Amino acid sequence: MEAGPLDRHDLPQRVQKALNAFVASQLGLLDAISDELSPLTDALTELIAGGKRLRPAFCYWGYRGAGGEDSDELVTAATALEMFQACALIHDDVMDGSDTRRGRPAVHRRFASQHRAESWVGDPEAFGMGAAVLLGDMCLAWSDEMLSTSGLPAQGLLAGHRVFDEMRTELMGGQYLDLLEQARGGGSVERALRVARFKSAKYTIEKPLHLGAVLAGGPPEVCRAYSAYGLPLGEAFQLRDDVLGVFGDPAVTGKPAGDDLREGKRTVLVAMALETASPTQAGVVRRHLGDPHLSPDGVARLREVLEATGGRSRVETMIEQRVQESLSALEQAPVTDEARAALHGLAVAATARSV
Amino acid sequence: MEAGPLDRHDLPQRVQKALNAFVASQLGLLDAISDELSPLTDALTELIAGGKRLRPAFCYWGYRGAGGEDSDELVTAATALEMFQACALIHDDVMDGSDTRRGRPAVHRRFASQHRAESWVGDPEAFGMGAAVLLGDMCLAWSDEMLSTSGLPAQGLLAGHRVFDEMRTELMGGQYLDLLEQARGGGSVERALRVARFKSAKYTIEKPLHLGAVLAGGPPEVCRAYSAYGLPLGEAFQLRDDVLGVFGDPAVTGKPAGDDLREGKRTVLVAMALETASPTQAGVVRRHLGDPHLSPDGVARLREVLEATGGRSRVETMIEQRVQESLSALEQAPVTDEARAALHGLAVAATARSV
Repeated sequence: MEAGPLDRHDLPQRVQKALNAFVASQLGLLDAISDELSPLTDALTELIAGGKRLRPAFCYWGYRGAGGEDSDELVTAATALEMFQACALIHDDVMDGSDTRRGRPAVHRRFASQHRAESWVGDPEAFGMGAAVLLGDMCLAWSDEMLSTSGLPAQGLLAGHRVFDEMRTELMGGQYLDLLEQARGGGSVERALRVARFKSAKYTIEKPLHLGAVLAGGPPEVCRAYSAYGLPLGEAFQLRDDVLGVFGDPAVTGKPAGDDLREGKRTVLVAMALETASPTQAGVVRRHLGDPHLSPDGVARLREVLEATGGRSRVETMIEQRVQESLSALEQAPVTDEARAALHGLAVAATARSV
Repeated sequence: MEAGPLDRHDLPQRVQKALNAFVASQLGLLDAISDELSPLTDALTELIAGGKRLRPAFCYWGYRGAGGEDSDELVTAATALEMFQACALIHDDVMDGSDTRRGRPAVHRRFASQHRAESWVGDPEAFGMGAAVLLGDMCLAWSDEMLSTSGLPAQGLLAGHRVFDEMRTELMGGQYLDLLEQARGGGSVERALRVARFKSAKYTIEKPLHLGAVLAGGPPEVCRAYSAYGLPLGEAFQLRDDVLGVFGDPAVTGKPAGDDLREGKRTVLVAMALETASPTQAGVVRRHLGDPHLSPDGVARLREVLEATGGRSRVETMIEQRVQESLSALEQAPVTDEARAALHGLAVAATARSV
């Protein structure tokens, strides 16, 4: 059987192995602190057993495309992005008050349940939140440790850390903008797209590619080509995520149906629908979007509005256009043929209608 | 006027300057994301305008003691610890639900107030919590960026990052243990001391000294001497903090009187008092400790128990013993005379009855 775009060179298995090896390397220090820290590593191990490993894949192929050789050190460096993503997911779920992640209880819920099961003192939710904030902080610190101890040559790591630094600041800035959009009850399509760009597009695709390129000592024109390919693709990825968040199959997304609607996410999809919504349709959005107790019937009515306004189909068109733009840029990119083929496959996989 | 132990070589001013310069260096990137991110830097600027700058001071003198020269690069590297501390404070206040920090509203309260003032959509507290989680994450990422871009030579930075990595993991592990102690309603003096060791003693004193030593390329015997001086001193520092949290002057601590009692902190002081408490006294602790609405009268009754059981005076003895142990070790330490004098002064300042 031919390997899928995400599976070339056994990447998912190697990423998992690098994650496990890193967590194992911390156990000595954790045990020296206390023998009671295992709930932290247990929760993390469960969380990082899932995921599509997109960011390490883009970093890996960014490196290979710039002429770098395959190595386990490269995979470890690329996997630092997955550890960083673990922080983003854990803290995101705290901020959104999400119950589930990757089909399992979110980390803060897991710790709240432990508190309840042990009949401890105080508020279980506060305990869960505190433990999740700390575990996310630990992942954030560990991600950068993972990059710097990956074993890649010092010169590339120095440049890599600058990309990593910029990526972190962009992500956190983008996430704050996202909070602001939700608090303001949403705005224009343009504003929603800007949030998507910083919160997701650059972080998921462009910056991992740049990280790979500079780790390999690649020239500036490779980074420029990666931006031309990665930025439109990153937006398409986030737009696809928005659509799946509303219309996706829970078995695939790992989130209950309509979760994004209950959380009141002010996505490009919603902004797009509101642009052409009738007063009645806009009323349905106002009434139901962000209702934490939204019924299946309410989910169905919101979906209906997002379809009937043409919002969904226009977002599909935006996705297609961006994927095309990305693939055209890829054709011209000064990268190896193997990397071009892999990046083509990744573009398709990252924006597929069911992932 | 002679400089105080914290003021030698204008350290507080230079730390402040390094913090301001670093935040200013990020404004270009933040502006490129959006012109709406200034509430984040405003909140951070206010927070980092205060504080005793203990951690940078220990790092600075750890470096000087190991034979390193004074430089602005050194001060910037040492100030990375203050940026890290900003993350710890912001996230701590979220986890503890604290209202104030350094005499001003805690960061999450500040953002919740902004939400209320703007009459935004959704829960102001959730918005405040989300913004504070993100700003803390940003400080965590920035602290490590600050260290690696400080301009100190690469060899020392490489070793420094390993100390920094270990420190971060120890702090987060220690904070989780602290959460666990509160949830269990407290335990033995020994357990409370272990939490203090990892959450505070190593992080505040030993590790900053080690960071300075390895940044300067100091030999292992300097690190050993710093542990002999720093570990007992770090415990004394945390014990002093516990006492001030209950008996301290709000004008000095920047926290309302009795805040630690309302938060239900399970400190060594509390564990010590419970060891010899009568059933009636233990009942007062059970009833009042951790009551978020504790009245001034309740605060007075708890204080009375902590005094009458002999808890407070035994903690004072523990502090004295540890400071003595620390100062004896300092006398033998293979460091420069100027550093020895500075570290002596810092030991006294870090554990003084009113700081």
